Amino acid sequence: MNSKSALTIFVFVIAVGFYSCNNDSQNTLDKTEQTNNSNAHPKLILTAQGVKDIRAQLGTIPIFDKTLATVKEEVDAEIASGIHMPIPKDYSGGYSHDRHKRNFVVLQKAGVLYQILDDEKYAKYVKDMLMQYEAMYKTLPVHPKTRSYARGKLFWQCLNDSNWLAYVSQAYDCIYNYLSEDERQQLETNLFRPFADYISVENPQFYNRVHNHSTWGNAAVGMIGLVMDDDELVQRALYGIKDANLDANAKDNDGGFINKDGKAGFLANLEEPFSPDGYYTEGPYYQRYAMYPFLIFGEALQNVKPELEIFKYKDSVLLKSVNALLQLSDAKGNFFPLNDGQKGMSTKTNALVSAVDITYHFGNQDAGLLSVAKAQDKVMLDDTGLSVALGLKENKEEPFSKTSINLSDGSDGDEGGVAILRAKNEDLTLVFKYAAQGLSHGHYDKLSFSLYDKTDEVLQDYGLARYVNIEQKGGGNYLKENKTWAKQTIAHNTLTINETSHFNGKYDVGSQHHSVLHYFSSEDETIQVVSAKEDNAYPGSELLRTMALIYDEDLGKPFILDIMKVNSITKNQYDLPFYYFGQVLSTNFEYETPKTLNVLGSKNGFQHVYLEAKSKKLSNNGQFSWMHQNKFYSLTTITNPNDELLFTRIGANDPDFNLRRDPAIQLRRKNTDNTVFVSVIESHGNYSPVTELATNSRSEIKELKVLLDTEDYTAITIATVNDKTKIFITANTNASKKVKHAVEINGTSYNWTGTHYYK
Amino acid sequence: MNSKSALTIFVFVIAVGFYSCNNDSQNTLDKTEQTNNSNAHPKLILTAQGVKDIRAQLGTIPIFDKTLATVKEEVDAEIASGIHMPIPKDYSGGYSHDRHKRNFVVLQKAGVLYQILDDEKYAKYVKDMLMQYEAMYKTLPVHPKTRSYARGKLFWQCLNDSNWLAYVSQAYDCIYNYLSEDERQQLETNLFRPFADYISVENPQFYNRVHNHSTWGNAAVGMIGLVMDDDELVQRALYGIKDANLDANAKDNDGGFINKDGKAGFLANLEEPFSPDGYYTEGPYYQRYAMYPFLIFGEALQNVKPELEIFKYKDSVLLKSVNALLQLSDAKGNFFPLNDGQKGMSTKTNALVSAVDITYHFGNQDAGLLSVAKAQDKVMLDDTGLSVALGLKENKEEPFSKTSINLSDGSDGDEGGVAILRAKNEDLTLVFKYAAQGLSHGHYDKLSFSLYDKTDEVLQDYGLARYVNIEQKGGGNYLKENKTWAKQTIAHNTLTINETSHFNGKYDVGSQHHSVLHYFSSEDETIQVVSAKEDNAYPGSELLRTMALIYDEDLGKPFILDIMKVNSITKNQYDLPFYYFGQVLSTNFEYETPKTLNVLGSKNGFQHVYLEAKSKKLSNNGQFSWMHQNKFYSLTTITNPNDELLFTRIGANDPDFNLRRDPAIQLRRKNTDNTVFVSVIESHGNYSPVTELATNSRSEIKELKVLLDTEDYTAITIATVNDKTKIFITANTNASKKVKHAVEINGTSYNWTGTHYYK
Repeated sequence: MNSKSALTIFVFVIAVGFYSCNNDSQNTLDKTEQTNNSNAHPKLILTAQGVKDIRAQLGTIPIFDKTLATVKEEVDAEIASGIHMPIPKDYSGGYSHDRHKRNFVVLQKAGVLYQILDDEKYAKYVKDMLMQYEAMYKTLPVHPKTRSYARGKLFWQCLNDSNWLAYVSQAYDCIYNYLSEDERQQLETNLFRPFADYISVENPQFYNRVHNHSTWGNAAVGMIGLVMDDDELVQRALYGIKDANLDANAKDNDGGFINKDGKAGFLANLEEPFSPDGYYTEGPYYQRYAMYPFLIFGEALQNVKPELEIFKYKDSVLLKSVNALLQLSDAKGNFFPLNDGQKGMSTKTNALVSAVDITYHFGNQDAGLLSVAKAQDKVMLDDTGLSVALGLKENKEEPFSKTSINLSDGSDGDEGGVAILRAKNEDLTLVFKYAAQGLSHGHYDKLSFSLYDKTDEVLQDYGLARYVNIEQKGGGNYLKENKTWAKQTIAHNTLTINETSHFNGKYDVGSQHHSVLHYFSSEDETIQVVSAKEDNAYPGSELLRTMALIYDEDLGKPFILDIMKVNSITKNQYDLPFYYFGQVLSTNFEYETPKTLNVLGSKNGFQHVYLEAKSKKLSNNGQFSWMHQNKFYSLTTITNPNDELLFTRIGANDPDFNLRRDPAIQLRRKNTDNTVFVSVIESHGNYSPVTELATNSRSEIKELKVLLDTEDYTAITIATVNDKTKIFITANTNASKKVKHAVEINGTSYNWTGTHYYK
Repeated sequence: MNSKSALTIFVFVIAVGFYSCNNDSQNTLDKTEQTNNSNAHPKLILTAQGVKDIRAQLGTIPIFDKTLATVKEEVDAEIASGIHMPIPKDYSGGYSHDRHKRNFVVLQKAGVLYQILDDEKYAKYVKDMLMQYEAMYKTLPVHPKTRSYARGKLFWQCLNDSNWLAYVSQAYDCIYNYLSEDERQQLETNLFRPFADYISVENPQFYNRVHNHSTWGNAAVGMIGLVMDDDELVQRALYGIKDANLDANAKDNDGGFINKDGKAGFLANLEEPFSPDGYYTEGPYYQRYAMYPFLIFGEALQNVKPELEIFKYKDSVLLKSVNALLQLSDAKGNFFPLNDGQKGMSTKTNALVSAVDITYHFGNQDAGLLSVAKAQDKVMLDDTGLSVALGLKENKEEPFSKTSINLSDGSDGDEGGVAILRAKNEDLTLVFKYAAQGLSHGHYDKLSFSLYDKTDEVLQDYGLARYVNIEQKGGGNYLKENKTWAKQTIAHNTLTINETSHFNGKYDVGSQHHSVLHYFSSEDETIQVVSAKEDNAYPGSELLRTMALIYDEDLGKPFILDIMKVNSITKNQYDLPFYYFGQVLSTNFEYETPKTLNVLGSKNGFQHVYLEAKSKKLSNNGQFSWMHQNKFYSLTTITNPNDELLFTRIGANDPDFNLRRDPAIQLRRKNTDNTVFVSVIESHGNYSPVTELATNSRSEIKELKVLLDTEDYTAITIATVNDKTKIFITANTNASKKVKHAVEINGTSYNWTGTHYYK
């Protein structure tokens, strides 16, 4: 079925849209002609024509020349240190793992150097190492470490073996003509073909699924197939293993389904996890990881099989996804750690270098991408990197435009999404998640958000509980606290009901549902709003969260208005935490601190939280100010007399110190059915430890009030300390942008057209 | 007695040394001639000749021109906003406080602008504001806030009033000739003279002591005296109030003695707190604060009374102190937070701009100071700033040399000190404190240390418990936790015995003692050592701590060897904490974590610490690795089977969240008299969240052993994972650099000359 749907799409693809190549048709045509001869090598990533062009420009293209010099220095040092071929034995972070990882990276680079510099020493180095791999691989047993659901041979998991093959196929392509036919025969028979078979037909549970692991496997098999001119492998890459009968209920190490619906192959992996907007359902951290195989195999297919028009597939989704990924980063270029994401991963990662260069070259030569490439300070050493280097040389770059954007989730774009609201050139950025489960790396955090200012996280998403590649922490793999803490709802800035996670933390249930966009509005810079519903996370309870980024000259700095409306058929305990960083500055309420710290609960993440303080009597607004990295922030939230504001800190029941000791302020409301939570979050001032001056250290908010809260409308007033009052009304049922509303509140009529009112 | 000793020193001063002016005698002579006419104004900081020179160079001196433009913009904005003269009522951080603070800063700048730009609008602005102060001050009562031992009138403490006068006297000097004699008479009679009297003769408990507060008072009174040509005030500034009979046992708000020994006046303040090396006994944070009055009044005295040769006083201690202060900063220029010091205060503070410019101009034109000035990116708008601007214009700057340095404490340099050991261009910096009490801002932390690498604190000194000028936190003043936590011994990286602070936390006792240098050796870059003794902190116990910074090519990166040797007549409990930052990475021992967090003790700071985990059985070495800001660190320490390694965290009994939740690993040894603690601290690797590669994530240390520990010698072997073994032997009794030692250990003879052996 996969092959059929893919072919259908090939026929209907229309070369229009932002990323289409139609304004570059002459170039495209040239490339097609140059690369159609499948016997010329290199042809996979570097092309024979590209090598000619690069050699002609060398010395006049600064960023390319610089990258080349760095790579040459690196490879020369490796050649000088000799070939290291340890017997595989370690997990990530161990010597044999790191060494073989290093080897495939160096092999790819050495192949490129051979082509560009025309120096045989690099070809010989590649050949010698490949021959050693050939000698070792033909008798190599399955890797001795047993933790993976799909053990590799060079590495503890097939995933890493696939990484190896995707890189090494490029090296092989580069020295293909340098080798004799016998040598090629020897490598292909004893190393490459069995290697490709091992990670595919011998491990269908790894290969034949929709998952970032499989994408790597598909790309690896396809790329070596393209180099070897082995169409069976290329077909297996594109469409998966025919007749692989996998248990529809089997799961991998992360608890994800192996293959519930039988979809497989590169095209299915392109089809399924990407929404039409280019959002990748696992989130940006895994998208970044998947980008390299997606785009490098895309580039290879475009070079060797241009008739597939892979970059136009699904309305150019591959190229769109690069824009989506760049948008999913904070002002420093760090990706938002949605779902399992490790903080600090950024647009500077190598996978984004290839993504940006390939998108620039095969897409629309977007000048904004040049400024991203400039910040990356390196390019691909191939035809695409040459394009970027020439663009930069000609000073064509413009700032990459970070905007407010709503990214749909789901292969058809109808399974929720992620909205990003930005104000004042990223002075404040709201990330609002109302997406689908996100496969096995998904967290149970419907309608959650995180908040960023220009330099810091203001309210954090915890990210994953893992120290990637740091062997001392659980072999560099996922820690058990990833499941017991990081994935749980209470670990996120969203609502937990009755100390239970969304969908009861059950992956099978969560995977069947997604939140639903109510409306998204970013046209008016004064007030940008996103609103979404979640009716399935807690059966019997309906959540509607409406978040506005208000940047109103009347009120000063941009701030967030957060309205979480709940309808429930039962009386519940609600917990709404806000995970801040830094030091408590002040509160407008009294609180008591216990002598000893006890855990907040017994399960679903609550067992990992200490209670550091609890509010005494609250008035109608609870206000909490804090200080972090010399900046002042405040949360103001509407409170009932029986509400509690809890000061919590992560770290309980953490016998290996796997969790960060980060704090939260948590609003708790008990024994309540229908209710609404209304809060404002400000980043309002800063402190200089050098001048010792505090600027705007106090909240601008005097009072928040619910003016009206019905099934159809919620109206909030925001009064500031400067005695200005604003009213925000959101339509809770009718999200049409065209409908006219008329509401009377306390004798005043409010009339407007569209989703919301603000004045 | 002060006047007598000061006069004696004036006679004996010899113009030699690093900071002398003898290579600049022509310039000095010129200045003397120019400024001897005490009727010419300005004369105090700006001089009439300086103004001429500056006007001639304007537009050709970039850093000066830039500073001038910034100041002009700032003052023009203030002039446009009008004059604000609130009735004094607030503590630090409140409006009236901040406004009057702003006023004096702007007045000083406006005065300078009048002189340099020759634009009467600035003179008029200064005059108008001074007249409003005159109108208000003559009937102004004592400030309504009562917390200070010396309440001011414009501010809640005389200290801030003194700040005001020190700045405003400069403004007055600048517009002196612009005013009519009547106007001057009016201001001097109703404002300046009574103001000077109020902060001096009416508040002798503030003015007549050796303390940074008094230095401000003395400078303020002296500067207005110099402008007004009022020699009585100048004499009062230099020598204090005659016959002020103060209670020798009275204390200030910080618990410091007001005036135990009757010393007072600017010269006494210069004499007493500065050691001959220029170390200021309160530590760099307060020295920085004191620098401005010391140097600005020094400049004023040099300009108006050059015959005093103030910059040669006490072997040029004023200028030496600037070098000492610059050395007391980390690689980022942040001052080490010894005693009460707020982190983040740096060499970029305005007080250091004046200090650096004045030192450059009146000192030896040290080219290293120009690079500090360049980083400050501004200069004084006076003769000294002109010198610096011309130096930078002529590209004379050289890197400021940060070195290993031993700074003695005490007015005669015989009351302990602070040693700084630096390796590899500040890749690792050890700060070792064996100083005197440090007056009322001193902490009880004999033989404590802190450790820095190029970008971070590795093992921290907590600093003060205060949020300076952030009114929400205790009015911006010292918090009670400063006494109950920050000053206590357990808050520091040194030895606490029997859960009691040094000197039992008694200021009267601590002030009578200081640690004693055993030896300091920084000649050999491979191994730099400082060793000091403390026999009084715990009567009956003698502490000898020897710390080596080893940078041995055989072993790789620099690391710290720490030997704390204790002899005691009683069996004790010892606690030796190491305050790290970040996440626990690994240990070579098992530990147990409690379900609830309990406090570690009941008093002396222990009540502020939670116990997060405790080691089970230890072997002969306890090793602990952690990760912070993507760097890897390890502590390896020799342990006995009955020792405990405690994982602690600050924050218990902290009802207002005044303390940071920082962790420590703490070695506890019970029921022991004589013993030795031996540890190695490494900064050994780093992690990139972008490449996700961990480099050198593990300790290089395999084992530490005590080979010998006698009264005379302690010998340690350091074995690395690469099977290299080094021996360090320190002489515990004879610290002569010339004496020959011969020690036989396990049949091997070790022979060397000097304090220590390393091979």
